[in-house]
Amino acid sequence: MLADEIKGYNLEQLETLAAQLRERLVAAVRENGGHLASNLGTVELTLALHKVFDFPQDRLIFDVGHQSYAHKLLTGRDLTHIRRKGGASGFPDPEESEYDAFIAGHSGTSIAAGIGLCNARDAYGDRYKVISLIGDASLGNGLALEAVFSSEEKPKNFLVVLNDNGMSIDKNNSALYHALSKASTKKGYRAFNERVGRTFKETGAFGKKLRKMKYSIKGWLNKNDFFERCGFKYVGPVDGHDLCELVNMLESIKNIEQPVLLHVITVKGKGFEAAEEDPARFHGVGQNFVGSNNSFAVALGRVLCARAQQDASLVAVTAAMTDGVGLSEFAAAYPHRLFDVGICEEYAVTMAAGMAKGGLSPVVCLYSTFLQRAYDQIVHDVCLQNLPVLFCIDRAGFVGADGKTHQGLQELSALRAIPNLKIFAPKDCSELVDIFDYARAQHGPVAIRYPNGYAANLGSRMRISDATLWEVLTEGDGVVVLASGARAVARALDARRVSGLTDVKVVNCRSIKPLDEKMLDRYASCKILTFEEGYVAGGFGAAVAEYYAQKGETVQLQIVGAPDRFVGHANAQEQAEDSRLTSRELAAKIRAFAARGAQA
Amino acid sequence: MLADEIKGYNLEQLETLAAQLRERLVAAVRENGGHLASNLGTVELTLALHKVFDFPQDRLIFDVGHQSYAHKLLTGRDLTHIRRKGGASGFPDPEESEYDAFIAGHSGTSIAAGIGLCNARDAYGDRYKVISLIGDASLGNGLALEAVFSSEEKPKNFLVVLNDNGMSIDKNNSALYHALSKASTKKGYRAFNERVGRTFKETGAFGKKLRKMKYSIKGWLNKNDFFERCGFKYVGPVDGHDLCELVNMLESIKNIEQPVLLHVITVKGKGFEAAEEDPARFHGVGQNFVGSNNSFAVALGRVLCARAQQDASLVAVTAAMTDGVGLSEFAAAYPHRLFDVGICEEYAVTMAAGMAKGGLSPVVCLYSTFLQRAYDQIVHDVCLQNLPVLFCIDRAGFVGADGKTHQGLQELSALRAIPNLKIFAPKDCSELVDIFDYARAQHGPVAIRYPNGYAANLGSRMRISDATLWEVLTEGDGVVVLASGARAVARALDARRVSGLTDVKVVNCRSIKPLDEKMLDRYASCKILTFEEGYVAGGFGAAVAEYYAQKGETVQLQIVGAPDRFVGHANAQEQAEDSRLTSRELAAKIRAFAARGAQA
Repeated sequence: MLADEIKGYNLEQLETLAAQLRERLVAAVRENGGHLASNLGTVELTLALHKVFDFPQDRLIFDVGHQSYAHKLLTGRDLTHIRRKGGASGFPDPEESEYDAFIAGHSGTSIAAGIGLCNARDAYGDRYKVISLIGDASLGNGLALEAVFSSEEKPKNFLVVLNDNGMSIDKNNSALYHALSKASTKKGYRAFNERVGRTFKETGAFGKKLRKMKYSIKGWLNKNDFFERCGFKYVGPVDGHDLCELVNMLESIKNIEQPVLLHVITVKGKGFEAAEEDPARFHGVGQNFVGSNNSFAVALGRVLCARAQQDASLVAVTAAMTDGVGLSEFAAAYPHRLFDVGICEEYAVTMAAGMAKGGLSPVVCLYSTFLQRAYDQIVHDVCLQNLPVLFCIDRAGFVGADGKTHQGLQELSALRAIPNLKIFAPKDCSELVDIFDYARAQHGPVAIRYPNGYAANLGSRMRISDATLWEVLTEGDGVVVLASGARAVARALDARRVSGLTDVKVVNCRSIKPLDEKMLDRYASCKILTFEEGYVAGGFGAAVAEYYAQKGETVQLQIVGAPDRFVGHANAQEQAEDSRLTSRELAAKIRAFAARGAQA
Repeated sequence: MLADEIKGYNLEQLETLAAQLRERLVAAVRENGGHLASNLGTVELTLALHKVFDFPQDRLIFDVGHQSYAHKLLTGRDLTHIRRKGGASGFPDPEESEYDAFIAGHSGTSIAAGIGLCNARDAYGDRYKVISLIGDASLGNGLALEAVFSSEEKPKNFLVVLNDNGMSIDKNNSALYHALSKASTKKGYRAFNERVGRTFKETGAFGKKLRKMKYSIKGWLNKNDFFERCGFKYVGPVDGHDLCELVNMLESIKNIEQPVLLHVITVKGKGFEAAEEDPARFHGVGQNFVGSNNSFAVALGRVLCARAQQDASLVAVTAAMTDGVGLSEFAAAYPHRLFDVGICEEYAVTMAAGMAKGGLSPVVCLYSTFLQRAYDQIVHDVCLQNLPVLFCIDRAGFVGADGKTHQGLQELSALRAIPNLKIFAPKDCSELVDIFDYARAQHGPVAIRYPNGYAANLGSRMRISDATLWEVLTEGDGVVVLASGARAVARALDARRVSGLTDVKVVNCRSIKPLDEKMLDRYASCKILTFEEGYVAGGFGAAVAEYYAQKGETVQLQIVGAPDRFVGHANAQEQAEDSRLTSRELAAKIRAFAARGAQA
């Protein structure tokens, strides 16, 4: 395994390998899509960590983990089919490799997890090292800050590597030009230099190199006593692309007992010109580096821009996913009305609540998987006060290649239990626009959820209104299929058409809370099948079941949704197949249900 | 209204009023229970804010809000029946008064809400002041830290008052002895002194007074450039019990345009000797200052101590609720195995995940309402990795006097949708012990939920095991009542006994996930009524409905649970009455269900 081999590499060999790893990264992402810029930026850092530390005995915890590709290559993972079904995951996963010490996918977790792991290690008297690798943007997340400021003494033999690529959303601060000043580290330099046969002089251009860098991080990092006050020995900054510097430094701090924060400066996209120049575009890309084609995000961006022109009170809020949720155009047109707060979902929601309290109309745009990070703020700060905050929830349902850390399968169950909150799911992009307008007329909190990817327009028979919450798409006197969400509705229509189930009535249940009770009352004596792309537990089908069971009404009801398990990476269609939620599976279920006696 | 009258008060009048307010606070808490120490500590600060600012035009946002009693008294609220049904809420509530600018009950919200409100104000070109009043412990919460570090420029005319009572869990840091140094504030002093007819000299003992104080806050506050680097003008510290100082200072900074952080030092429990000496005991108290009698918390504490003695891997984690969840005894017996991380629920859970990864057996003890603050961490860091973290969830169900911000009605719905997580609800304290042991043998994440308050032992017929997930408490061939949770089971038994419904079968559904499927299959042809103290949406009854509806089995099912609305302060029994969940209501529902024809 490369991770073992490089223990014996000299600097030139490491540098050659770095170049090779970059080529393989670029090829893998070109082929499969994925995170490019962040991975290119951490090649040398990853090599240096593997050269100096002994994984998996020592534990490397990634934060977010979209910078773990080089680590995967070094530890025997094949990236040829990364993010595809059967291929490697795009994130660290202990189930995939013992070299992945902790799961990652969401931000800000690594320091807390690292402290916990150290606590366990020390309780058992073990001696392995724990290393948390966190980016500067993630460090601004509340969970990371809680861990940094945590009041206990920080554990010994704990290294936090701050990968500072200056890409944190805060660009207005001064650069870091600190020279190394610790005697211990200077000593380490010499030791390494002797070993690799390169003089210190040759690598001594550090100050100069750094001064050329234009990258900066948050103002509060200006003084390196910040981390000292939080209980870490601060070391750095180090040029994150100078392998000699990195290995020197890591060797020299490897045996410092006290907790250390090593500040490393990297360039996002390093070594791939296009990515260096526009790292945001190459943060996460599709195959052949093409951006994703997300119909709903595009539609949301358009309606936001259109309504913003008419209504000065409309503002948009997001948490480091401006592009992903479709806000790029809005950002350009209304820069002062877009609040991208960085990876701070909680702050985004409570700040939006404050804006709503002050009379603005905030639209909070988040992925389903990240919205769940602000669950309490939605309950406590928004819904308890019945504030008119509109949540636009992207990536609801199967997320595709990002896999199990990013699925949008449970947020509906959590949201349904919040009083005052209304919840909608458009069947297509043109209905998203209708519902967007309808939602903004509700004078209270509303959530609209939709999947990523392309969605065909299904045609509208009846626009949403208080009197027409649901829409009958096809008439029939057989099984009533209550489908909720764009993919479920499309598949229900498909199942009916392809399988010749012409007597199936397909209903577009675009309003999940409230339900269309009139329609439910009308169908109480029918065979009712609910269909959704989300967990059954507490989902849309559960809502229908609850409605009848609260009335004590006995109905023939079949709930079809995702089974109770985490769903790994694959494309969204494959994920639907694995969860038996395709139109073909649905058709079979409808047929079986239709054939069953009145009382099963 | 007092808030208006005090505008004309001189210093002596203010001081007299402060003493009167203290008496009223003590009397109100003695009579009704509530938060005492924190309220006593902020009397002068509240008076000074009301003297200097013009509420409700200016906006005062409390953090947590358990220090708002003096504010309530000044703004016309009667505290005679505070926290009781029909009386004032124990927390700020915009529905109660226009002087309460934002809801509070959970920590760390005020700065984010304040920034949002400022953003709205500035968008409309309004000129009111926004003031966020936050305690030092709350400042360590991730949401508060996200707001402090938020990268945008902080809004103008925004004042954050840091109420530093040194009660943050970090006690190992140096005290603050900064003298005031700002010319602007010195000028303000003189102006106020002239107005109130008291010379500066008389009030000039500030430095001395402060030096006597032993209180301190987190080390990172040591240098007042901390907040300056985060975009605030730092002012202080000020003696929070010196009205002259406070008014002077507020007058002097009132018209500073730039965002200001005013650091105020207060003494928790001030003016009530017992509370000053033991502020923790007087943080939240019951009637006559007696601690609450929470059977489940006591039982949990005992079993934790007992098992900790046998099993060195057991550790306990909580987030500033050591006493409330019953960990006091454990804290004394195993100080190094208790991790009370302050008001950092997210950090608590992810750190626990790290400890579990390292081989420890963490038991995370949180109230239901605060657990929801770590929803994503439970999903992403614990359950995705199937880690053996045990969540002991107190205050599940109606919370009583703390009211709507603290209800434990929705966490079950959110948790049910998480794969790998098992969920239990004991019927009484002795069953809590059984389930605790059973849970720890599960090799994966488990949640155990129970209400606060006293619970009688109901007697055990069959201990929990894989084969006996549920327990039939009373036999009968009438309606099958599936009751989940201590209060629901007790009321179901009560309904049967009192109402002579002797043919009712009462089942103790102590395992919510997984369900006892064998038993459900057995009852499929019966009339089944589910009963729980929680929201119907996604709750236990929904789980039962989902089970049958996934099989496509038609059953006669009635779900009884809490209606979809927030529930205000009252005692828990009254809250059950208002939600029609008493044993009498249940008996009526059982009777009506029994009388109904087979197919309603």
